[in-house]
Amino acid sequence: MKFIEGGVCAAYGFKANGIHCGVRKNRDKKDVALIVSDVLCNAAGVYTTNLVKGAPLIVSKEHLKNGKAQAIICNSGNANTCNANGIEIAEGMANLVEKTMGISANDVIVGSTGVIGMEMSLEPFENGIDELVAGLAYNKSSDANQAIMTTDTKEKSVAVEFELDGKICHVGGIAKGSGMIRPNMATMLVYLTSDVAISSKMLEQLIKEDVKDSFNMVSVDGDTSTNDMLVLLANGLAGNKEIDSENKDYLVFKDALAMCTQKLCKMMAKDGEGATKLVECEITGAKDIQNAKIIAKSVIMSNLVKAAMFGSDANWGRVLCAIGYSGADVDINKVDVDFVSSKGSVPVCRQGSGIPFDEDTAKVVLLEDEILIKVTLGDGNASATAWGCDLTYDYVKINGDYRT
Amino acid sequence: MKFIEGGVCAAYGFKANGIHCGVRKNRDKKDVALIVSDVLCNAAGVYTTNLVKGAPLIVSKEHLKNGKAQAIICNSGNANTCNANGIEIAEGMANLVEKTMGISANDVIVGSTGVIGMEMSLEPFENGIDELVAGLAYNKSSDANQAIMTTDTKEKSVAVEFELDGKICHVGGIAKGSGMIRPNMATMLVYLTSDVAISSKMLEQLIKEDVKDSFNMVSVDGDTSTNDMLVLLANGLAGNKEIDSENKDYLVFKDALAMCTQKLCKMMAKDGEGATKLVECEITGAKDIQNAKIIAKSVIMSNLVKAAMFGSDANWGRVLCAIGYSGADVDINKVDVDFVSSKGSVPVCRQGSGIPFDEDTAKVVLLEDEILIKVTLGDGNASATAWGCDLTYDYVKINGDYRT
Repeated sequence: MKFIEGGVCAAYGFKANGIHCGVRKNRDKKDVALIVSDVLCNAAGVYTTNLVKGAPLIVSKEHLKNGKAQAIICNSGNANTCNANGIEIAEGMANLVEKTMGISANDVIVGSTGVIGMEMSLEPFENGIDELVAGLAYNKSSDANQAIMTTDTKEKSVAVEFELDGKICHVGGIAKGSGMIRPNMATMLVYLTSDVAISSKMLEQLIKEDVKDSFNMVSVDGDTSTNDMLVLLANGLAGNKEIDSENKDYLVFKDALAMCTQKLCKMMAKDGEGATKLVECEITGAKDIQNAKIIAKSVIMSNLVKAAMFGSDANWGRVLCAIGYSGADVDINKVDVDFVSSKGSVPVCRQGSGIPFDEDTAKVVLLEDEILIKVTLGDGNASATAWGCDLTYDYVKINGDYRT
Repeated sequence: MKFIEGGVCAAYGFKANGIHCGVRKNRDKKDVALIVSDVLCNAAGVYTTNLVKGAPLIVSKEHLKNGKAQAIICNSGNANTCNANGIEIAEGMANLVEKTMGISANDVIVGSTGVIGMEMSLEPFENGIDELVAGLAYNKSSDANQAIMTTDTKEKSVAVEFELDGKICHVGGIAKGSGMIRPNMATMLVYLTSDVAISSKMLEQLIKEDVKDSFNMVSVDGDTSTNDMLVLLANGLAGNKEIDSENKDYLVFKDALAMCTQKLCKMMAKDGEGATKLVECEITGAKDIQNAKIIAKSVIMSNLVKAAMFGSDANWGRVLCAIGYSGADVDINKVDVDFVSSKGSVPVCRQGSGIPFDEDTAKVVLLEDEILIKVTLGDGNASATAWGCDLTYDYVKINGDYRT
């Protein structure tokens, strides 16, 4: 099992493209992505838990009811949410793919990301669809990736190669993250492709299990977006025996998928809006997994912890504080805290009380751009990890005037 | 019923003082406050729900078990939390008041605010107690107020005069707020005094009811501090007939107290760390009060809404988004949103969808320093208000390196 290049095109039989169609004014920014499989795929998705749901999610959910899909079309620049004509636009995007490529609209997944509540028109898509389809290629994952970026500063792409049943298999994906990201759901936009043969039913189970430990453990700013979705298309072209139960192959695929999704999680957290650092919180010794997760998320979501990380300040009291108000069942007098980075490890709290540490060493450790907050509890054997980022001037700048 | 000057000294028989004792290094900053009643008071308190509780809270809670208190001693600069010797120090502070003034240590409330997990010594208190006591006066609420400030930029003081049973009565208080403030508990430090005669039992009921609509509806940064407490001392010197049931006088006192506490709430939110604006969210038409409160708090706690307010950006989609993920039972298709300030009112969303509005007018309205986000639901008749502030560069700056 190894990481490879290729993103959504790493798996056999997937083409992608991304171009500027005019949803955005800036002509230098790609704004519509298209991902297409050579053959019909089994497919499954998870969606935001926000009561306000973007029209594309409502349409995609409907299209995925039969567990089948063949293409994904997604724009940035407008979330197509809280618009009177949202459903019409989302259906229109799928219809354009049907009209141009002959793929049934019902097999097209639709996504949108950007500002909420802004009127949207089909015109840019009508103008651009021919060029978008004509440019599809087996090596253009990066173009699709660029087209779904909003305030992301980096592309987020991953792929893993592994073996099932003697066949070379792949799973890969692209994601957009940045702001409005919070645990409690499938977060942000994540499009995954695979050539593994797997039933729709098992695929759905797989991604539901996966997000619990991946995207539901990421937070950038505690805000749960209206448009978050994750979709996995599996076209079966690897030629393995179709996975139709929780067998050995299922577990291998699950591991490969987790490699992908957890890497995307870290990329998202590290490229959170304005972020200068990836902040990872690892909990061990918790009473159970539920409590471990609650605590890990509470720590990475604390604005005070996040601001301290920005300042490379070993303010462990804020970590303890975030554990204390998390709502988890935890014995606060048995909490140990260490700050860890590639420069070393600094123990700062033992049994719930501060211990002396060298501030200069702590500063060196915390000046790194990947920080692990290691919390060891004395309540049991469960563990969990959550990913977040620091809170910076740039987060405020980006979000203080995003719309205009 | 009217606002008057005087803070904790507005009520008959309360002296106060605040001086620099040396808890902080900066000699220009007062760091210990003392508030004393001429006679023993009925008293009640509410405390943080954080599992990590500062030693002063544990000690004060114990001292308040009998419903009686006569003095409050409180320092800033060190939270006396997560220290091995915390209880000893907190008890030591109360003992110094007993030794110097003859008030039983068991009738002394202790408070501390500042950094968590920093060793603390009694020495500054031992050195300063004589000066602190000698300087007590009936008009030095402001000195006490200054001594409990941390990153607060303004004193927070309030008092109300009203009549009960033909007698002039008063209730007043001081508070410190700024960061680490979040609904879900009695937040921050609030010391209230009154000359009303009321039983300890009714006093406790009164403040528990009050905080539900006041301090539990305030958020600066979503962090629930380890040291939050609110204490009300009532010495009975107004000479009214003691309130011992939920009678007419109880309701009048409740109104007067609410006038005080809600004003302090607004002051705290407006002076939140780095804040440039008070952001108020008023919910009407909710299914019930619980849902109204959940929604109001979700809106003012959203980092994205807060950052938009900083940028005077009418990004109402983020308001709708925060309503959607609040967890409240709400029909999102019946939500109306207006932005309101002293410059006017801008309707931006009707029935869950955006409506056209003039961006320039919206900017003028949102450039004010007190913004009301008015949310009208179509679910019922319940209402609630929450108070918060914007998220700014200075919040990040203040919290990026608070300790050093």
